[in-house]
Amino acid sequence: MTDEISVPGFRVGGKRGKKYGLAIVASDVPANCSVMATSNKIRASPVELSLKHARDNVAQGVVISSGNANAFTGEQGERDARRMCELASESLGVDSEDVIVNSTGIIGQNLEMSEIEELIDGVAENLQSNDSGINDAADAMRTTDSFEKIASRNAVVNGENVRVTGFAKGAGMIAPDLLHATMIAVILTDTQVPKDKIDDALRAAVDLSFNMINVDGDTSTNDMVVLLANGTAGNGEAGSSFQTALNAVCLDLARLIVKDGEGATKLFEVEIHGAVSSEDARRAAKSVVRSTLVKTAVFGENPNWGRVVAAIGYSGAEFDKSRLSLRLSDEKEGVVLVEDGVGVALKGTVEIKKAGEILKSSEVRFTADLGVGDFTATAIGCDLGYNYVKVNAEYTT
Amino acid sequence: MTDEISVPGFRVGGKRGKKYGLAIVASDVPANCSVMATSNKIRASPVELSLKHARDNVAQGVVISSGNANAFTGEQGERDARRMCELASESLGVDSEDVIVNSTGIIGQNLEMSEIEELIDGVAENLQSNDSGINDAADAMRTTDSFEKIASRNAVVNGENVRVTGFAKGAGMIAPDLLHATMIAVILTDTQVPKDKIDDALRAAVDLSFNMINVDGDTSTNDMVVLLANGTAGNGEAGSSFQTALNAVCLDLARLIVKDGEGATKLFEVEIHGAVSSEDARRAAKSVVRSTLVKTAVFGENPNWGRVVAAIGYSGAEFDKSRLSLRLSDEKEGVVLVEDGVGVALKGTVEIKKAGEILKSSEVRFTADLGVGDFTATAIGCDLGYNYVKVNAEYTT
Repeated sequence: MTDEISVPGFRVGGKRGKKYGLAIVASDVPANCSVMATSNKIRASPVELSLKHARDNVAQGVVISSGNANAFTGEQGERDARRMCELASESLGVDSEDVIVNSTGIIGQNLEMSEIEELIDGVAENLQSNDSGINDAADAMRTTDSFEKIASRNAVVNGENVRVTGFAKGAGMIAPDLLHATMIAVILTDTQVPKDKIDDALRAAVDLSFNMINVDGDTSTNDMVVLLANGTAGNGEAGSSFQTALNAVCLDLARLIVKDGEGATKLFEVEIHGAVSSEDARRAAKSVVRSTLVKTAVFGENPNWGRVVAAIGYSGAEFDKSRLSLRLSDEKEGVVLVEDGVGVALKGTVEIKKAGEILKSSEVRFTADLGVGDFTATAIGCDLGYNYVKVNAEYTT
Repeated sequence: MTDEISVPGFRVGGKRGKKYGLAIVASDVPANCSVMATSNKIRASPVELSLKHARDNVAQGVVISSGNANAFTGEQGERDARRMCELASESLGVDSEDVIVNSTGIIGQNLEMSEIEELIDGVAENLQSNDSGINDAADAMRTTDSFEKIASRNAVVNGENVRVTGFAKGAGMIAPDLLHATMIAVILTDTQVPKDKIDDALRAAVDLSFNMINVDGDTSTNDMVVLLANGTAGNGEAGSSFQTALNAVCLDLARLIVKDGEGATKLFEVEIHGAVSSEDARRAAKSVVRSTLVKTAVFGENPNWGRVVAAIGYSGAEFDKSRLSLRLSDEKEGVVLVEDGVGVALKGTVEIKKAGEILKSSEVRFTADLGVGDFTATAIGCDLGYNYVKVNAEYTT
């Protein structure tokens, strides 16, 4: 990264140990905070604890471990999550109830705490206010992730420059649901976002980003997005320019997660127009990015667009079959597959040939018009190939 | 097959041509009929036409082609479906409106009718009342299916021996939904099932079988189950022994479809107990058999049971986390993975080792108790391995 990404008033660090990795964030002052958590009914102990700690919309520290999700681990899991908060609290000199905690990795196995304890001590001693702290934290959170996921934007809020920086982990067990996010992302900003508005700000951003991605259709037990706004910029209440920056950071991170989907070779977007409601547009878009058959067709660069139409068909969204249209495009060019309910890219046509060529791009977009309204939505998915199977047939630890 | 499977009063045949395959069933007399069709809003033209033809619960012929689904093919598709009924009607000497028609294969491409027309003539001329006709029909319906799917049972209805025989196709785009079936199956019986009861009889069987299977989560545009009861046995109204036989035939066919899931190497069942309602039990069971992560774990013989728990967690079904239990078993032995909400098969235990051994079997069963009620359900899925990707990345025609 060439541009500065660190956020004033935050110190960050991370380290990978033998079995686990660990990341810590500390704010110089108590920050306003929002936590969005998975809708899975089996929520990991640390997620439950974080939701309690964020109930007052204030937090000052974040501690995240990778290698074991501490999910479905009963009372031992609760004790371990509390212990992680306590250790971070002592190391950072902040209130234990102001620490947000989470873990990621295998479900149903107890954390071995001795290494976690060592890591918390080690990381807390070396927090940095520069960019490398954020890089270390993003690296330490990785499990099957093949690269670090960091995004940053500047915004001008009431005349002051402020920064919004997020880092995330996520590559598998990715299928957001409802109003909740389903991966782990930490977003820091030095602007001031009032306690009574911070949940709405984060929810709006999450709904346009993390909640519209799909790697494998499985909604995790641990996924969480946390936003800390410490007001260090001293510039008063954040407005629309902050929301724009927050949306952009969340969308960048969401795209990075999809790009790094387990075994993924291609990212594809599905843009729905002409829906009767926003919910319907989202439903149709998400149905297509979830479809295993569409995913494997994209992997195979196989212009079998009937699978896209079928996935819209079973999504539950309303549409007018006789007005349905579908296009495929990459950055350079596009081709009509269906127009007014009639297939254009038939066997042997130039359109089907062109569709096959466009599918060779690493990023493609299906654009469908449902022909029944004015609402729109975009979902983001990745292909499913041999490496997804390899990663998930063999991944246990 | 050693036992006789042909059904009195029915003649059946099938043939594979160059691009397409074609199967025909003819009843000697008009039969009472029930058709259950996919819930996908994009229903193929032949499915729409068949639902019209079955509105009076009477049919006398069935014609099914493979190689092209005739789905999302507009007016041309409607004409082609009608033409298939007319040709079968002429060849069989039955009313065109008493012909049930369907197709299976790629979506969005027009049928090339010349071969279909030849096939209808050829097959209709050689219908057989013996077993080989049924074998030929099951073979002709195949697309990515690697074997024929046939099931048969005898029942005693009012003192008379009657037979229920079904044949089916299906290997991919398999994910049943709601009250509808999502593959193609034809079931024939010589007992009498009254018109006003035949839909209920088929629905009951479909709900326990085809609607509980999942290969890839994609609900097809073409899937259909048709039951023809021609009353040839002359034994009066069918009762519970017929229903038992019908349920068994549907379940056999459903299991055969899963066993032949594209690229599948293992079948796994998920049996849910202790749910607050039948719907909830079904929801939980279906969520697990749909999970890509569970499917890949089963493929990898990887006892990562946390993925099963997570899929129950996001299913929407009610459960008591502190009473949840989970077992894994094959035909010979079983092992407890979770008991009263506590993981038993932890790293390094004999249980986790045994779970890995059981997963080497070609058929395994997860049995979960949700701990909140008395309802139960069983769903059936298959693993997802490299060959699923291969089949679906390359399959266009």
